Amino acid sequence: MSEKLWGGRFSKTTDEMINEFQASIGFDRRMYREDIAGSLAHAAMLAKAGILSKEDCAAIEKGLRDILAQIEHGEFSFSVELEDIHMNIEKRLTDAIGDAGSRLHTARSRNDQVALDTHMFVRHAVVEVLGSIRELQQAFVETASANKDVIMPGYTHLQRAQPILFAHHLMAYFCMLTRDFERFQGVYARTDIMPLGAGALAGTTLPIDRAFVAKKLNFERIYMNSMDAVSDRDYILEFLSAASILMVHLSRLSEEIILWCSREFSFVELDDAHCTGSSMMPQKKNPDVSELVRGKTGRVVGHLMAMLTAVKGLPLAYNKDLQEDKEGLFDAIDTVKFSLAVYAQLIRGMKVRADVMRHAVEEDFSNATDLADYLVRKGMPFRQAHSVSGQAVALCIERGIWLADLSLGDYQKLSALFEEDVYEAIRPETCVSCRNSYGGTSYEQTAMQLNAAQELMTEEQDLISALTKKQEVL
Amino acid sequence: MSEKLWGGRFSKTTDEMINEFQASIGFDRRMYREDIAGSLAHAAMLAKAGILSKEDCAAIEKGLRDILAQIEHGEFSFSVELEDIHMNIEKRLTDAIGDAGSRLHTARSRNDQVALDTHMFVRHAVVEVLGSIRELQQAFVETASANKDVIMPGYTHLQRAQPILFAHHLMAYFCMLTRDFERFQGVYARTDIMPLGAGALAGTTLPIDRAFVAKKLNFERIYMNSMDAVSDRDYILEFLSAASILMVHLSRLSEEIILWCSREFSFVELDDAHCTGSSMMPQKKNPDVSELVRGKTGRVVGHLMAMLTAVKGLPLAYNKDLQEDKEGLFDAIDTVKFSLAVYAQLIRGMKVRADVMRHAVEEDFSNATDLADYLVRKGMPFRQAHSVSGQAVALCIERGIWLADLSLGDYQKLSALFEEDVYEAIRPETCVSCRNSYGGTSYEQTAMQLNAAQELMTEEQDLISALTKKQEVL
Amino acid sequence: MSEKLWGGRFSKTTDEMINEFQASIGFDRRMYREDIAGSLAHAAMLAKAGILSKEDCAAIEKGLRDILAQIEHGEFSFSVELEDIHMNIEKRLTDAIGDAGSRLHTARSRNDQVALDTHMFVRHAVVEVLGSIRELQQAFVETASANKDVIMPGYTHLQRAQPILFAHHLMAYFCMLTRDFERFQGVYARTDIMPLGAGALAGTTLPIDRAFVAKKLNFERIYMNSMDAVSDRDYILEFLSAASILMVHLSRLSEEIILWCSREFSFVELDDAHCTGSSMMPQKKNPDVSELVRGKTGRVVGHLMAMLTAVKGLPLAYNKDLQEDKEGLFDAIDTVKFSLAVYAQLIRGMKVRADVMRHAVEEDFSNATDLADYLVRKGMPFRQAHSVSGQAVALCIERGIWLADLSLGDYQKLSALFEEDVYEAIRPETCVSCRNSYGGTSYEQTAMQLNAAQELMTEEQDLISALTKKQEVL
Amino acid sequence: MSEKLWGGRFSKTTDEMINEFQASIGFDRRMYREDIAGSLAHAAMLAKAGILSKEDCAAIEKGLRDILAQIEHGEFSFSVELEDIHMNIEKRLTDAIGDAGSRLHTARSRNDQVALDTHMFVRHAVVEVLGSIRELQQAFVETASANKDVIMPGYTHLQRAQPILFAHHLMAYFCMLTRDFERFQGVYARTDIMPLGAGALAGTTLPIDRAFVAKKLNFERIYMNSMDAVSDRDYILEFLSAASILMVHLSRLSEEIILWCSREFSFVELDDAHCTGSSMMPQKKNPDVSELVRGKTGRVVGHLMAMLTAVKGLPLAYNKDLQEDKEGLFDAIDTVKFSLAVYAQLIRGMKVRADVMRHAVEEDFSNATDLADYLVRKGMPFRQAHSVSGQAVALCIERGIWLADLSLGDYQKLSALFEEDVYEAIRPETCVSCRNSYGGTSYEQTAMQLNAAQELMTEEQDLISALTKKQEVL
Repeated sequence: MSEKLWGGRFSKTTDEMINEFQASIGFDRRMYREDIAGSLAHAAMLAKAGILSKEDCAAIEKGLRDILAQIEHGEFSFSVELEDIHMNIEKRLTDAIGDAGSRLHTARSRNDQVALDTHMFVRHAVVEVLGSIRELQQAFVETASANKDVIMPGYTHLQRAQPILFAHHLMAYFCMLTRDFERFQGVYARTDIMPLGAGALAGTTLPIDRAFVAKKLNFERIYMNSMDAVSDRDYILEFLSAASILMVHLSRLSEEIILWCSREFSFVELDDAHCTGSSMMPQKKNPDVSELVRGKTGRVVGHLMAMLTAVKGLPLAYNKDLQEDKEGLFDAIDTVKFSLAVYAQLIRGMKVRADVMRHAVEEDFSNATDLADYLVRKGMPFRQAHSVSGQAVALCIERGIWLADLSLGDYQKLSALFEEDVYEAIRPETCVSCRNSYGGTSYEQTAMQLNAAQELMTEEQDLISALTKKQEVL
Repeated sequence: MSEKLWGGRFSKTTDEMINEFQASIGFDRRMYREDIAGSLAHAAMLAKAGILSKEDCAAIEKGLRDILAQIEHGEFSFSVELEDIHMNIEKRLTDAIGDAGSRLHTARSRNDQVALDTHMFVRHAVVEVLGSIRELQQAFVETASANKDVIMPGYTHLQRAQPILFAHHLMAYFCMLTRDFERFQGVYARTDIMPLGAGALAGTTLPIDRAFVAKKLNFERIYMNSMDAVSDRDYILEFLSAASILMVHLSRLSEEIILWCSREFSFVELDDAHCTGSSMMPQKKNPDVSELVRGKTGRVVGHLMAMLTAVKGLPLAYNKDLQEDKEGLFDAIDTVKFSLAVYAQLIRGMKVRADVMRHAVEEDFSNATDLADYLVRKGMPFRQAHSVSGQAVALCIERGIWLADLSLGDYQKLSALFEEDVYEAIRPETCVSCRNSYGGTSYEQTAMQLNAAQELMTEEQDLISALTKKQEVL
Repeated sequence: MSEKLWGGRFSKTTDEMINEFQASIGFDRRMYREDIAGSLAHAAMLAKAGILSKEDCAAIEKGLRDILAQIEHGEFSFSVELEDIHMNIEKRLTDAIGDAGSRLHTARSRNDQVALDTHMFVRHAVVEVLGSIRELQQAFVETASANKDVIMPGYTHLQRAQPILFAHHLMAYFCMLTRDFERFQGVYARTDIMPLGAGALAGTTLPIDRAFVAKKLNFERIYMNSMDAVSDRDYILEFLSAASILMVHLSRLSEEIILWCSREFSFVELDDAHCTGSSMMPQKKNPDVSELVRGKTGRVVGHLMAMLTAVKGLPLAYNKDLQEDKEGLFDAIDTVKFSLAVYAQLIRGMKVRADVMRHAVEEDFSNATDLADYLVRKGMPFRQAHSVSGQAVALCIERGIWLADLSLGDYQKLSALFEEDVYEAIRPETCVSCRNSYGGTSYEQTAMQLNAAQELMTEEQDLISALTKKQEVL
Repeated sequence: MSEKLWGGRFSKTTDEMINEFQASIGFDRRMYREDIAGSLAHAAMLAKAGILSKEDCAAIEKGLRDILAQIEHGEFSFSVELEDIHMNIEKRLTDAIGDAGSRLHTARSRNDQVALDTHMFVRHAVVEVLGSIRELQQAFVETASANKDVIMPGYTHLQRAQPILFAHHLMAYFCMLTRDFERFQGVYARTDIMPLGAGALAGTTLPIDRAFVAKKLNFERIYMNSMDAVSDRDYILEFLSAASILMVHLSRLSEEIILWCSREFSFVELDDAHCTGSSMMPQKKNPDVSELVRGKTGRVVGHLMAMLTAVKGLPLAYNKDLQEDKEGLFDAIDTVKFSLAVYAQLIRGMKVRADVMRHAVEEDFSNATDLADYLVRKGMPFRQAHSVSGQAVALCIERGIWLADLSLGDYQKLSALFEEDVYEAIRPETCVSCRNSYGGTSYEQTAMQLNAAQELMTEEQDLISALTKKQEVL
């Protein structure tokens, strides 16, 4: 008998090369837990519905649990000839328990089986990603809290713009991650839909109970249309979209870390553990981890592009093209989890050079807006104040000094509104503490953000715990 | 005085070519309503906070409403020299009402102003997209309802697989659109966050009231971090992601329509209004609309890739690269709305050739699974039944006949379990009605889907109405 | 002593997780031949330049050849701790031959070393791709030659347009591959540039001889600028671009094969070896190979996108992000080679159903252009002839007949120019043979194409042979 | 009579909305010169072949030249109802000269006509891009030549690595552009293939002379297969690929310019003409042009992805999806030409702050490799020398000094090989001039590069002139 379980109709065996080309066992073996959990639920349902005898069901359950143990102990040898994880497990099961094993596939097709496994795998991965996002958020909050008073230049266009709190800067990333967390919740909701029972595409003629399976596997919803169930890859596209946006966030963070580590900025110093040296240049301490994460952004975006291209233009229902859904997905999952985890470490481990940052603010014009705002407070229309402040800057550049160095006489030549209190108004600490509008960089507003963050993280943790528990279906 | 409002520091005027290169007025003029609504809310808030006099506020309001009228009557001439819609409006306002106009920009920066306008624009576009999705869903439900009994071959791998109901096939698309609807709700939630008051990046020193502005403009949330507020483009990336997935759905539908219109399938005939002819070949009736939508999928995916690439690696906070966010977005909005609208028409207008579809099912082996299921019901293990059915198919191919043509004798040579009732079991109508598992293709399940769809669409309409009302802020 | 060769400056060892994150040995081990060949050439050059003693050089050569043998016999165990293939080999070398081994890295950096290896690897891969392209071209020519007289409907918009020769259709793919071949020649030319000697970024202070190395390794050109040499990834981007376009070609071919295999078209039958069945539906024979190739198009496009994103915005010279260049590249190489090879088999193995194709042409309006052309030859302006032919088609549709079935009387009611010879003019064979303009579908023009193809393939083979020989540098 | 020239078969007029959806006149009107040139050549050929009378040909020629003049004088009003530039011109021609006009379309289809126009348009655009590349190369050579002795830190991982010449750094970009130039030559070669005469897909029954048309329009090659001719979009994909790689180069340059303009680096100062200010912060001088070019990289990459997605999976021959080929292409052409042109200006206009760069090199460890090389020259194995140099760096960091500040005694404690000449060896000028390997950063090698660049640019100019002349076909 042929190893291929669908071989009845064929007179030739599949060519060796093609076999390898289309075998997915090399990567879908990662879903062995999901496949076994799915089969256990399916068998239990078949038994309950009277389609499978109690004895067969018991034999299947024992057989599957044995296989699970074998795989987890590294004692299971996967066969490329059997193409995928589903066939590998079913063949082994049938070898072990005979006829009963061949009854497991009753009322299901590889199409809905693989859909079920992948949904469960992604659902689980999303929960892990949620945990990793929260962990990095925690690192930001800790580092921001530990450096509450550190002032640094804020940038737009990579030009110094206004003095800000370093903690405020970090919390911007916290906020981005909050949206990532929300987005992945959306991914979870649209992954948490049960496809089994869709059969090859049209449902099954047997009296199955899909709600039973859904409950056993903790699915919130069930696909209402069988063709949709087997051809839907939205949850993968949406995972990759959310992952791409998240990685773009980390690429921005990476760019900043790399800048801050440069000799020119020197705002932070990374722990040696997060850097590497050079085989040629002895002095080098390279922020490799940040560079890698920035580079790996491309990888995840590429996987999204790959999947969008693969699904584009496919008619219903299942097409083999859809097998391309897993490798990129798995790699994206690994990349995202790794990048988040490594950044949680890196942020916690980095040395913040408060002195360098504070010193930087003294040698730039980032307080020019405050000079203009000073005039506005004294009654000058903003556009005019902006222009006067611009002239003050030009004067300083001409003389090679900073705004704090300009004499009151010089100021008053520019506008009669200037008084002695201008110097206090343009001190970095003043600039920071005055930006006290909601969400601004002031000490007060930053403290508000840190408090709000704590509350949010508590809620997130509750959700993660609840979802984690729902994954325990084996 | 220079036309450029930030020109104080500069000694040379911007080069002509560069001016054009970076001017955004060519496309951001579409946001004039949002810009004016935002400025009205900002002015009202400044007045309430005592930063602006009541008289100035009134003058500003009148001036802005005049400009609105001018633009809507086509009497406003936009200037490239003034770069963008914000400067165009502000300059005109100042020309019209003098000093008061120059006070409008108090406590705001172009960075948070453009962010506000874009958020409002996207929020509005999302509501329109939601409406268009629902409209197409409606078309599917109508066409499915009007063709409840039509049987067609269901395909996997573009090979005939099992007989299905045409209505079931259409409802698969309905279900995809349901997820699109959900996804765009997520986009709405993460667009509906108010950025104004973030200033250039760090908030403002003036006692503004962001909650007041948020309420006036019907925003649910306010950005908690000013740097995040001005550099966040997640909502655009997420819009483009959701739009890409939606377009991939429509590309699949398009592929099917194109197949169905082919001479070989002939399952539907499009209304002449949705086709074009050939300049050379007189007989041609081309499904151009479907081809265009399929092609335009690339366009939207391309815009997503463009934006991911543009944002990748940007340090905080605002960088000019982010100006690239609008053209692709606007084009994606138009493309998505158009594609949905045109498909709602096309689906309603197409002639379903029930006879051709039904006839097709008689001349294929799509009932081979039913043959196997028949044996399973008689007690044969599935894998074995699958094999017997495969042998029956092979026998038919050899003789050039179909399963219904095989004699009972022939059947019984393959298995003693076959009886006279096998012929009823493999009739297309039986095949369809037997697949009565939840979400299957049976008449009953398809009716269930249609009912559920009606309920869902009612809920969707309620949501759309509520959101539409929230957009009325001018 | 630390395992890390650049560890002198550091006080902590690299964190385990990060180690794995940035280690490339998992994939760059594929370049062991290139790394060893490069090191042999480098050592020989150092010796010639008097930088390395003859004895050391001899020891290095022997050591490297031993390592080569070990790797090829599967006796080399790679260490993740040593990060990459370069360090793995160098460490082993130094362990084996002592001090001399540590002199090998004189006057080179990992930056130019990895660049050299990758250039050689890509160069070699391109030659293999060229060979695979030609092989598939050969398959097209053979299959076209074996089916010279087969007429089929030609399509535009997936609507039948005009009768064509099946051989003509296949030769369209031959022509696409010709451009792919040219493009990969361009990739070769821009990969065939020698980077070694660029050092970390600025060249070296030692009196090296880069031309010597280039000659030894058969490089045509040498990078003229050291910074460019270590940061250039154009050749990878260009490989991925050419590979993407090639895969898009194969995706089009795949779409057609899938269509032709459908019950509706039935134009070809694939060999069982290139199909698979269904675990559920016994009758299925799915064109999986074509579906997979079509799906894998996304994969290669994704790798291109990934690399463009990764390189975007990187300052000079080397950045760790560039390490992301290999995995996608390697996978693209494998995918392209595999897809081409499997298609060469599939095309040769498929059964062309000439009867089905010929029959199809009789039951459509694909001769309507010929009807118009007939009138043009009789003196009617084209636009008018087009209109008359359209009316004839409309008349046929009304009556449910084809153009050949229309009576001469009916024709003459449409135009007095019609005579008895109209029936000969619209026979499929006439339609085909009359399209005898250069490159048209006529028998004569198709024969011309086949002859030209033979000549071209001879030239291609000469080039492939010459380039293959140039790769023998070990 | 309907405005639509293919309307004979249809009973309804095309829906208004769809009309707009599929009309291309909004963008393809840019190809009016190509369309007219192509029609002139086609008419001349038809006349020569006896298919068209001399009188008709003369009338057509006059009519087309009149239309050309009208368009160029802005007196031609384009109609959306007529869909595209081809129909707009043909309709106008027929209105003007009657019957003769309707004979112009003899022996051609819109499919090969639009292919011809687009080929000519791209061919022309490539020549302009080649010129713009060369212009930017010129700017690099000029600026490098004018700053021959300027030393700056060379970077890897954005960490200072080794002292280099600023001119050497600029020339790295020159070299990248050289490959871009080569790549676009490849694009030219594969665009310079004549499609006209392919008809709708299968050639024509009329005795046309494609070689005549090719010669008249200066095409080097003619498509050998008519189906390939009308469905090939390789030249567009290849243009977009080459453009994407080019833009990635400019994105890297942009990143550097932005870094160099930052307060932290301050290596260059841009001309005011290439910067803008801030509406809020008076001191800002933002490198907007560089940011925009960096951002627009995404746009071009997006167009490439759009086109790859659009073509993926399309069966032969023409499908309407292919109409999506132009908008992205046109935008990419504009973006590339603009970006190159603006950078040629920016590079020429920027002020190089030699003092800042030179000073930077004194305050870093970028001479640590030279310290190691010094020891290698004295006989120490490289890996050991690397380690000693690393210890020297660590010692300096501990004391807060640089390598030049370390006493000879200290050096000799690290290795007895150190002597007084170590100080000369680690001077930046020495470091630079010693890296005299081919392509290294030394004064000599940089001069070599500049000379080679001059020669290359002369060759490029010759090619550009020759190709420019070939575009004069109207």
